[in-house]
Amino acid sequence: MSSFLRTGKKIIAIGRNYVEHVKELNNTVPKEPFFFLKPTTSYLPSGGKIEIPRGVLAHHEVELGVIIGKSGKDINASQADSYIAGYALAIDMTARNMQEDVKKRGLPWTASKGFDTFTPIGSFIDRSAAPDSNKLKFWIKINGTIKQNGTPAEMVFPISKLIEHVSSIMTLEEGDLILTGTPSGVGPVSPGDEITAELSTESGVVLSSIQFTAIQRDSGYQFKPE
Amino acid sequence: MSSFLRTGKKIIAIGRNYVEHVKELNNTVPKEPFFFLKPTTSYLPSGGKIEIPRGVLAHHEVELGVIIGKSGKDINASQADSYIAGYALAIDMTARNMQEDVKKRGLPWTASKGFDTFTPIGSFIDRSAAPDSNKLKFWIKINGTIKQNGTPAEMVFPISKLIEHVSSIMTLEEGDLILTGTPSGVGPVSPGDEITAELSTESGVVLSSIQFTAIQRDSGYQFKPE
Ligand SMILES: [Mg+2]
Ligand SMILES: [Mg+2]
Ligand SMILES: [Mg+2]
Repeated sequence: MSSFLRTGKKIIAIGRNYVEHVKELNNTVPKEPFFFLKPTTSYLPSGGKIEIPRGVLAHHEVELGVIIGKSGKDINASQADSYIAGYALAIDMTARNMQEDVKKRGLPWTASKGFDTFTPIGSFIDRSAAPDSNKLKFWIKINGTIKQNGTPAEMVFPISKLIEHVSSIMTLEEGDLILTGTPSGVGPVSPGDEITAELSTESGVVLSSIQFTAIQRDSGYQFKPE
Repeated sequence: MSSFLRTGKKIIAIGRNYVEHVKELNNTVPKEPFFFLKPTTSYLPSGGKIEIPRGVLAHHEVELGVIIGKSGKDINASQADSYIAGYALAIDMTARNMQEDVKKRGLPWTASKGFDTFTPIGSFIDRSAAPDSNKLKFWIKINGTIKQNGTPAEMVFPISKLIEHVSSIMTLEEGDLILTGTPSGVGPVSPGDEITAELSTESGVVLSSIQFTAIQRDSGYQFKPE
C-alpha cells in the first residue's frame, strides 16, 4: 500500500475528534463521528510546497492518517483492525476563513479543504511498525516552534469506531486514507513558513518525519468574502 | 473514457445551478458556483438497486454528468471544451432530511450525498454524439410519472464556467465526473419505486436511457435526528 498516494481514491477526513480542539474552535463534541472528503489531487509528498490561494487564511491540522488495506462495508469495530494496512502522518490544510464562511451559510466544506497541495503527507508506514496505534505520538512545528502535539489515545472516537462509522455509509477501498482528526493548537500557515512534523513510537523511534515550505499561490481561485 | 466508473477518482457535484430548483428549496442563487464531492463508491450502473438507508428521506436529482478527458488546472472557460471527453446521465441521490440537518448545523454534506448506490448513472456518451450540449434534454420519471425535466441551457453557470471554477481550486483528472446541478422538481424516492431517466438530443435521438429500483437498506447507517 505504499502506492496509496497514486492509487487511492478517497481521503475521508474526520472532524472534531479531539476534545481540546473542539473547544478551541467553539464547537461541540459530536454524538457520532462526522467527516468530509478531500480530493486525492490535494496530496503533497514531503519536501513539497504548500500553495496558499489568494485571500485564504490557511491553518495547519496535523493528523494521523490510516491507510485501508482491503475493501469493506459495514465493518464492525471489532473487525476494523484487519482493514488497516498502515499509517501516514498528514496535515489537513484548511482555508479557515472560507470554512467559517460556508459553515455559517450551511454550504459544503469541500473547497475550503480541497485545494491542490492541501494534504501534505509522509510515506506509508506498515502497521507492523506500530502494533498499538494508541501509543503513537505526533507533533507539528511552524518555523521550529511546536504548535500541536497529540496521541491517538486522546481521540473522541477511536480508529476502530471511525472505520465502523464510515463503512456503514460508504464502502472503503484499498488505498483509501482516513484522516483521524486534529489535536488542539491549530493556527495559521503563511507564505515563507517552514512546516515540519514527526510521528514516533512511545519509546521515541521516529516513524515519519516530514517537511514543507508554504508559498503564495498567484493563480487560481481567490477568496473574497461576501 | 468509457472506463470512468472504474478508473475515475472524483465526482464533483455542483449545487444550485438551476434557478427554479434554487427557489423550490428556498435557497438563494449563488454568486459563484459551489460544489461538494461524492465518493466513486456511490456509483450504481443502470439496472441496479438504489439502497435507501434507514431513517433517510431520499430525493432524486437528475443531472447531466460531464466526464473529463485529460488532466488540467486553472482551465480558462474558453479552453474548457477540450477537457470534455463526453457525458453521462446521472442521479445525484440525496438524503434530504440529513442534508437539511447538517446545513442547519454548519456540517459537511458528505454523508447525506455519499451513501453506496447514491450516484445511479448511465453509460459514457462520447462528446461527438452531442456537439452542442446546451441542446440536450433530460427527464426523470418515478413510477412512470415525469418529475423533473431540463436542459443545460437553463444552467446558472454553464459547463465551461464550472470547469474553470472547479479547476481553479482542484486539478481535474481523466475520468473525473462533474454533476452539473439539477432542475426543479426534486422529490422523494421510496422503497419499491421504479426510477427511469432519459437523455436525448434536440431532435429526439435518445443518447441514454437508465432505470433503477429503490429498495430499503436494512444494514448500515441509520439516521436519527438529534
Ligand atoms: Mg462536503
Ligand atoms: Mg482536520
Ligand atoms: Mg445535485
